[in-house]
Amino acid sequence: METTVRTAVMGVSGYAGMELVRLLLRHPSLTGTPPLLLGRPDGNPEPLAAVHPQLMDNNGTGLGPGGLEIEPFSWERLKDRGISVLFLATPHELSREWAPVALEHGIRVIDLSGAWRLTKASNRSVYKFHDEGSALAAAVQTKAVYGMPELHRDSIRNAPLIANPGCYATSIILALKPLVAAGWVDARRGIVCDSKSGVSGAGKAPTARTHFMHAADNLSAYGVFSHRHTGELLEQLDLQAEQIVFTPHLLPIPRGILSTIYLWFSQQRQASEVEAAYRRYFRESPLVRIFPAGHLPQIQYSVTTNYCDIGFHLSEDGRRCVIVSCLDNLLKGAAGQAVQNLNLMCGWDEAEGLR
Amino acid sequence: METTVRTAVMGVSGYAGMELVRLLLRHPSLTGTPPLLLGRPDGNPEPLAAVHPQLMDNNGTGLGPGGLEIEPFSWERLKDRGISVLFLATPHELSREWAPVALEHGIRVIDLSGAWRLTKASNRSVYKFHDEGSALAAAVQTKAVYGMPELHRDSIRNAPLIANPGCYATSIILALKPLVAAGWVDARRGIVCDSKSGVSGAGKAPTARTHFMHAADNLSAYGVFSHRHTGELLEQLDLQAEQIVFTPHLLPIPRGILSTIYLWFSQQRQASEVEAAYRRYFRESPLVRIFPAGHLPQIQYSVTTNYCDIGFHLSEDGRRCVIVSCLDNLLKGAAGQAVQNLNLMCGWDEAEGLR
Amino acid sequence: METTVRTAVMGVSGYAGMELVRLLLRHPSLTGTPPLLLGRPDGNPEPLAAVHPQLMDNNGTGLGPGGLEIEPFSWERLKDRGISVLFLATPHELSREWAPVALEHGIRVIDLSGAWRLTKASNRSVYKFHDEGSALAAAVQTKAVYGMPELHRDSIRNAPLIANPGCYATSIILALKPLVAAGWVDARRGIVCDSKSGVSGAGKAPTARTHFMHAADNLSAYGVFSHRHTGELLEQLDLQAEQIVFTPHLLPIPRGILSTIYLWFSQQRQASEVEAAYRRYFRESPLVRIFPAGHLPQIQYSVTTNYCDIGFHLSEDGRRCVIVSCLDNLLKGAAGQAVQNLNLMCGWDEAEGLR
Amino acid sequence: METTVRTAVMGVSGYAGMELVRLLLRHPSLTGTPPLLLGRPDGNPEPLAAVHPQLMDNNGTGLGPGGLEIEPFSWERLKDRGISVLFLATPHELSREWAPVALEHGIRVIDLSGAWRLTKASNRSVYKFHDEGSALAAAVQTKAVYGMPELHRDSIRNAPLIANPGCYATSIILALKPLVAAGWVDARRGIVCDSKSGVSGAGKAPTARTHFMHAADNLSAYGVFSHRHTGELLEQLDLQAEQIVFTPHLLPIPRGILSTIYLWFSQQRQASEVEAAYRRYFRESPLVRIFPAGHLPQIQYSVTTNYCDIGFHLSEDGRRCVIVSCLDNLLKGAAGQAVQNLNLMCGWDEAEGLR
Repeated sequence: METTVRTAVMGVSGYAGMELVRLLLRHPSLTGTPPLLLGRPDGNPEPLAAVHPQLMDNNGTGLGPGGLEIEPFSWERLKDRGISVLFLATPHELSREWAPVALEHGIRVIDLSGAWRLTKASNRSVYKFHDEGSALAAAVQTKAVYGMPELHRDSIRNAPLIANPGCYATSIILALKPLVAAGWVDARRGIVCDSKSGVSGAGKAPTARTHFMHAADNLSAYGVFSHRHTGELLEQLDLQAEQIVFTPHLLPIPRGILSTIYLWFSQQRQASEVEAAYRRYFRESPLVRIFPAGHLPQIQYSVTTNYCDIGFHLSEDGRRCVIVSCLDNLLKGAAGQAVQNLNLMCGWDEAEGLR
Repeated sequence: METTVRTAVMGVSGYAGMELVRLLLRHPSLTGTPPLLLGRPDGNPEPLAAVHPQLMDNNGTGLGPGGLEIEPFSWERLKDRGISVLFLATPHELSREWAPVALEHGIRVIDLSGAWRLTKASNRSVYKFHDEGSALAAAVQTKAVYGMPELHRDSIRNAPLIANPGCYATSIILALKPLVAAGWVDARRGIVCDSKSGVSGAGKAPTARTHFMHAADNLSAYGVFSHRHTGELLEQLDLQAEQIVFTPHLLPIPRGILSTIYLWFSQQRQASEVEAAYRRYFRESPLVRIFPAGHLPQIQYSVTTNYCDIGFHLSEDGRRCVIVSCLDNLLKGAAGQAVQNLNLMCGWDEAEGLR
Repeated sequence: METTVRTAVMGVSGYAGMELVRLLLRHPSLTGTPPLLLGRPDGNPEPLAAVHPQLMDNNGTGLGPGGLEIEPFSWERLKDRGISVLFLATPHELSREWAPVALEHGIRVIDLSGAWRLTKASNRSVYKFHDEGSALAAAVQTKAVYGMPELHRDSIRNAPLIANPGCYATSIILALKPLVAAGWVDARRGIVCDSKSGVSGAGKAPTARTHFMHAADNLSAYGVFSHRHTGELLEQLDLQAEQIVFTPHLLPIPRGILSTIYLWFSQQRQASEVEAAYRRYFRESPLVRIFPAGHLPQIQYSVTTNYCDIGFHLSEDGRRCVIVSCLDNLLKGAAGQAVQNLNLMCGWDEAEGLR
Repeated sequence: METTVRTAVMGVSGYAGMELVRLLLRHPSLTGTPPLLLGRPDGNPEPLAAVHPQLMDNNGTGLGPGGLEIEPFSWERLKDRGISVLFLATPHELSREWAPVALEHGIRVIDLSGAWRLTKASNRSVYKFHDEGSALAAAVQTKAVYGMPELHRDSIRNAPLIANPGCYATSIILALKPLVAAGWVDARRGIVCDSKSGVSGAGKAPTARTHFMHAADNLSAYGVFSHRHTGELLEQLDLQAEQIVFTPHLLPIPRGILSTIYLWFSQQRQASEVEAAYRRYFRESPLVRIFPAGHLPQIQYSVTTNYCDIGFHLSEDGRRCVIVSCLDNLLKGAAGQAVQNLNLMCGWDEAEGLR
C-alpha cells in the first residue's frame, strides 16, 4: 500500500473532470491531500468554483481568492508537487501526446479518453491518431491496461497506464462478459446492443446537438455501424465485427446510460442459471449490482451512483435473452471507474469512496 | 363520396381523444359539423374546455356555458344526431362491448383500442377479453379491418369496423413491411425491434409509472417478451413468434416514438436498392416520409405531424440493416391514423386535414 | 383588401423564422403563393427541409432537389418576385440596416427584432445601435408602429413598418394594459413582473446557456434590472422606470412564457369587476383568452397556439392583484403576432390562419 | 455530547424520507448504528431496496432477504431499540397525533411536516388540524422549536420537538431575514416572493398534477394568496399578512427551489453593504452560501447539496433589491435541514455529514 498518493487532474472543466474532482475531494484515503487541478498550459489560475459553482464552499470566497484553484499545466508543477498519479480527462489527441511524457517522468496515468484503449490498429483507425504507427506509441500501448476492474483487476494493480473504458463500452461489456465467457452465446446469430445515453456524454462544448432545443423532447440514433466504442466491444468480448451491432442514441436527460442487449443462446437456458452465472462472475466485484430474474434496472436507479446495474429477461423457449444494463456515464462510465482503478493501483479497497 | 358525415367521439378526455377532436374540428370536409363529443353514460355534460383548456376558444365562455360540450353517451343520442361514424377512444374492454352494438345500429366504427386488431386467438390471449370465443365476437372480428392504410387501403374504404393499429406496431410494421414483402429479410436470424415511447402512450391515469418523478430523467424497459402489440407485428408481417423480439421503453418526453430495428438480409443489398424499395412500396402513401440513405429521422421531426418517418443504415457488407422509424404516437400512432381511415371510408383524399 | 400579397421571410433558419414559414404556408389567403424564403446574401440555395426536417414534405425530395428552397437574399430578387411584405426575422443590427432600404423600395416591413420598437432614445440605449442618432434612423422610426394589434389595431393597418413586440413584453403588456388604462393601478407602489421563458427564446446559436446540461433540470434568473424588453413596458404602459421591475428566467422547456405580475390597486376591487375590465378591453381581440376569476392559465394551454392567456387572483382585501399571463414565445410572442399584423395590413380577418 | 444516538425514521417511502435515510446511513457519527426504518403499523416488513432501488447494495440481496428493512411502526419497537430521536416524514395529521406520544415516551422528535411550525392559531387555520384548540396540542406546541438553525441555533440544541421548516419557507426566510433584521426593508410597500419548485415538492402520490404529461413542458402557479407556508414567513419575519405576497409555481424538474424576492429599502443602499449584511448574519452558518454582488445562484448549483444559496441585484437608485435564493427542496428544504437539527441536538458539528 502506498503511503502518500498525490493526484493531479488535467481537464477539470469538463463533466467527467468535475465528477472526478468531487470524488477525489471526498475520498477517505486522500483526506488532506486534495488533487492538483490543472487547466491549459497557457491559461491563468482560476478558482474551481468559478468553473463549477456547484463545488463552491460556503466561505464566500469560492468566486474570489482562496478555495481550490485550477492551475496552468506544466510538467514542472507536477514534479514540484510530487504527483504520482495523473488523471487525463482530456481529448484523446492530447492524451496521446501527454501519456508518454508522463510515463517518462515516472508518473502513472489514468486516461479517461479513447487514446489507449485499443490494441489492434484496425480498431484504432476510427480515431485517426496523429502518431498511429510510431514506435513510441506502440511501446506505450503495450504498457496500457484496459481499466475495467471486473475483467482486469490484477493487471490494473501494477499498470503504469490505465485506459479507462468508454461509457457505452462499460455498460455493454459488463452485461455480456459473463455469458460470453461461459460460452453460452451464439454470436454467429448476432448480438444487438441498443444503447441510450444522456447528453453529458456528448461533452461540454456547445454544439447544434447539445443545444437544449435539439436534445429536449427528442431521441436520435447516431454513429450507426461506426461508433468508436465498437472496437472496445470486439476486443474485450473477443468478437468479430459482423457478430455485434451497436447503436447509440441521445436521450433527453443529463446523465445515465441504458443499454438493451439482445442475444441468442446456443442452447436452452433457465433464468436461474443465467442469474447464477452473473453472480458467479461478479462475486468479488463490489460495484456491479445484479437484479433478480424478472426485475430490470432503470437509469434512475444508477444515476449518481458508481454502480453498473444488470438485469435480464429470457424468452419462453430459453433461447433468447434481453439484457438491460444501466450506469451513470460520468461515474461508473468515467470518473467512478477511474477512481476504482486508482484504488486498485494504490492497494486500497476497490470501492473506497465510491459507495 | 358521402355527402354528410356526422362523427362522434367516445373517450374525449384521454390524450388520443383530445388530438382526435382537434383534428376533426379542423377537418376541411367537416366544417360546420363538429363531432359529437361523448363521455361516460352516467356523467354530466361538461364543457370541452374544462377538460382540455388548450382547446378553449377565446370568447371566455370556454369554462362556462357555451362552447363545445362533452355529453353523456347514449345510443339514442347517436341516433338523434344521425351519427354515421363513431370513434372509440376507449379502453379495449369497452370497445369489445360497444363496437358490436354500433354495428347493429348501422354505425361504422373506428376503434382506437386493441379490441379488434388481432385475428388469431393465440395472439389475443394477452388481452383476456371477457367475450373471447363467443360467436358474436367472432362474427364482429370478421368484419374488422386492420386500419393501416398503407397496407390495407382498399379494404378500409368499405369496412364497417376499423381496428386502428397500435402506436408501436405502426412504427415497426411500416418500417419492416416493404423489406419483408420484398422477401429480402432473413427472419430466421431474428428481427430486433427496440422501441422508445413518450409518456402519453402510458395513458392519462396517474400511476407510479406516469408520475413525473419516475418518468423524468429516466429510461426504463418494460413488457419484455410480453407486450400486447407483438401480435400485430406477427400478423401483419406474417412472422413466427421466435423470429421477432420487441422491447418497448418509456422515454422522458411527452410524445413521440422512435423504433430502432435490426435485421439480416438473405443476401447482400445496396443502400440505393433498399431506399428504392421503400419509395416503391409507399409510392401512393402521402403520410410516410422516406429519408435518403444515410439520413435518419428523429422524434422531433415527426412530433405534431401525421407522418411516419423512416430511414436506415446498411452495414459495410450489405448484410445487416438498421432501420429507424419515428412518429407521433398520438397522431400517426392513434388519432391521425384514425382520421386517415375516416378519409378513406368517406372517399376523401387520404391525407385531408392531416398535413 | 389587397388582391395579391407576396411575402418574403429573411432569417428562415431561426426558431421564429421556422414558425413564421409554417404559418404562411398554411395561411388560407396565401394558398398558392408560398413565401419567398431568404438566407444570407452570400449563401447558396438550400432546401428548406435540410434546415428544418420537420417541414419536409413526403415526396422524399425534401433533402434533395425539389421542394421549397431558401434563396440568397438580394433586393433584385425581392423586386423580381414582386414582394410586397418583407418579414425580418433577423438580428436587430441587420434590421436597422435593411428596414430603411426596404421602405425605399416600397416594400412594407414586419420586423421581429428589437430594432424599431422604442421611440425614446433613453430606452433604446441598451441596444447600442450603430446608427443611433442618424437622421435616417429617426425618420424611419417615425414610420414604425408597435405591432401589438390589441393596442394599435388601426395604426397597424396602414403602417409601412411594423415593429413586432418582444415576447416577454407581449405577455406583460397585454396583462397590464386593461388595468393600467382603467386607471386602477397604484404604480407608485411598484409593479413586479416575474417572467419565465422556454429556451427557444434564447435563440438557436449553441452557447453555454443553451447547452442542454445548463438549461435542463435548472432555473436561472438573468438580466435583472437590465433586460431590453423593459423599455417596451415603459413606453406601452406609460410608466416610469422606478415603477416596474422585470426579471426574466430561463425555464427548462422548449417554448412558452409565463409571467406572474404583482400590483396594488389604488382602491379595493372585486374580482368580477377586474374580469369585466379585461373582457371589455379585449372585446374585439380574437387572440386573447381571459380566464374566469379563480382560474389561472398554464404554459401548456397556450403552447402551439397563437393566443395570449390571462388569469388573475385578488387578495382578500381587494387591494393586491396577482396576474398570470401565458403565451407561446414563438407564436403570439413572435411569428403568430407577425402574421396577425400581416392580416391587419392586408385587410384580412385578424385571426386568419392563427386559430 | 451524547454518546449513543439511535434514530428512527417514520415515512421512509416518500422522497424526503428516502433522502433522510441516505443521509443517516452515511453520517460519520452514526456509523454502525443505521436508523430504524418504519412503515405503516399494519404493514409487513419490506426491504428498503424494494421501495428505493437506488439504495440497493451490491450483494444482490437488496430485493430479497438481507439488507435494510422497513419495519411496521410500533411504540414497543421504538422502545426495544432504544430510539432517542424519531424523525417524522409523515403527513401533518399523523405528526399531530404521534409527536405528543413520542414526547411522552421521552423520545425527541424532528417533524418534517407542517404540524408544529406555527404558533398563531390564525396562521394554523389553513391546516384544519383535528385537535386544534386542545390543551394537549397547545402544550406540545410550546415545546416545539422552529428548526431553522440559522435563526434558532441555541433553542434547537435542547428542544424536545423540532418543527422542521417548509421548503419554500426556508428559501424565503433565509433570503429575507438578514435584511429584515437589519431594519432596512420598507415592508409597507410590499415584499413579493415568487417561488418555483420541482415536482418532488408535490409528493409521491400519483395525481393529475404530478402526472408527467401535466408537469413536463409546463409551468403553473398555484396556491396564490393561500399557500400554507405563508404563515411561516409571517411568524419568522415578523410581518403582517398584507406586507408579503407569496406565489409558488410548479417547475418541470425533479427537485430544487428558486425564489425570486422583490423588496424596497427604506433608504438607498450600496451593493457592498447588502453583501456585508448577509455575510455578517450568516458568519457562523456553514450551510448558507452567499454569492458575490452581481452573481446569482441557479437551481443547478444547489441541487444534491445541503446548501441554501443566496445572491441579489440592486436597482441603480439603490432602493429596490431583487434577491434570488436556491436550495434542494429535499435536502436543505427537508432532510438536510432535519439532519442539521439532529447535529445540533446531539452536540455535533452543525454540518456533519452534510457537505
